[in-house]
Amino acid sequence: MAELTHMIDSEVFLAFSTYATIVTLKMMLLSLLIAYFRLTKKVFANMEDTSLAHSTEDKKKMIRVDPDVERVRRCHQNDLENIVPFIVIGLLYALTGPDLATAVLHFRVFVVSRICHTVSYVLALPQPSRALSWVTGMFATFSMAYRVLSTALFL
Amino acid sequence: MAELTHMIDSEVFLAFSTYATIVTLKMMLLSLLIAYFRLTKKVFANMEDTSLAHSTEDKKKMIRVDPDVERVRRCHQNDLENIVPFIVIGLLYALTGPDLATAVLHFRVFVVSRICHTVSYVLALPQPSRALSWVTGMFATFSMAYRVLSTALFL
Amino acid sequence: MAELTHMIDSEVFLAFSTYATIVTLKMMLLSLLIAYFRLTKKVFANMEDTSLAHSTEDKKKMIRVDPDVERVRRCHQNDLENIVPFIVIGLLYALTGPDLATAVLHFRVFVVSRICHTVSYVLALPQPSRALSWVTGMFATFSMAYRVLSTALFL
Repeated sequence: MAELTHMIDSEVFLAFSTYATIVTLKMMLLSLLIAYFRLTKKVFANMEDTSLAHSTEDKKKMIRVDPDVERVRRCHQNDLENIVPFIVIGLLYALTGPDLATAVLHFRVFVVSRICHTVSYVLALPQPSRALSWVTGMFATFSMAYRVLSTALFL
Repeated sequence: MAELTHMIDSEVFLAFSTYATIVTLKMMLLSLLIAYFRLTKKVFANMEDTSLAHSTEDKKKMIRVDPDVERVRRCHQNDLENIVPFIVIGLLYALTGPDLATAVLHFRVFVVSRICHTVSYVLALPQPSRALSWVTGMFATFSMAYRVLSTALFL
Repeated sequence: MAELTHMIDSEVFLAFSTYATIVTLKMMLLSLLIAYFRLTKKVFANMEDTSLAHSTEDKKKMIRVDPDVERVRRCHQNDLENIVPFIVIGLLYALTGPDLATAVLHFRVFVVSRICHTVSYVLALPQPSRALSWVTGMFATFSMAYRVLSTALFL
């Protein structure tokens, strides 16, 4: 892992920046989707969010759990649990000086798998579509972690 | 995005370090606040946490869901969902060599908006205080993501 | 914080890469453990995950909340809430040029504390094992944040 500084100016790091930004934006879009569902379906988690309703009874009805909102929330949570490891390990992986084609392949597989995961989850497509996309993304991250640890182990 | 290495020694990166640390510490304080509420209100999620109670009946009463604890937990979760994208995109943004004043403005807007968000959420201030601070923080992150992708797109 | 670029080639950064990868992999293993529990105990959150069951009644029975799955999920969530701050602050800390022995001590204390936390949580060991390991990890992160802010404050 000598001369990491050179790696920051490399095309691998540029590719990592691009894919990391895209997959992070995808995750943020789920936040917006949850907000959209909450507003259109009038499903809230906090009493102060129901100020559009007039009577107290109407307000209480808005504080509920909706299956569609919960589905997108689970999808968002799964994104958080998988994209955070990808960003951390991907950044360190980009600094180990991997081959450009191999690195881009890893990033693309991860990003495409997470997009498939989101589509499968939000549209409730039959399994194993969601399970396979989840496993594929995880595999890409594990493969990068293997290279990080085999190139630069310092205990 | 040439000569990223120079950017790491820049004042922009120094500013990013400072604001990223502050907003991360703010998020960690919410963990402590949840722990404080759980201990003082005696609301736990696990049976082994109720060891201070003597009878089994008292222990079971402590395993419950409390609206105040849930409120701070939702606030903390929202922090996680918004601060992670800020850190990822902000780090890459700091490496694109933005103007110092513009960069510091982005970081300040984000950090102030998240502090407003936390205050609005924990104190249950009337809307749209929380909604506006959430949107403002997201807007700052989207603006930085736009610069990252327009400066350094590598697909 | 002059000449950060030199720090990236340092042994401190190498040590950070190693420990950050290990603790991230540990977090990912919890995802796999949750998936394993869901599959073996047949506890799912989505209707489309129950396709192995034949009758609709059997499917509905699989959509439930299981205490073991919830326990590992809480453990995983706590990891996310603590490992994200460690990664962010640890990365910036590694760039401030700390003494190698001090830095490695911080990383080791954090990683060991999180492994103890996971073991205590998943096996439901009596308190204060889990509380102490949580506090220890947090303390390591706060200590690194103190150095980042005292070395490189730019407001």
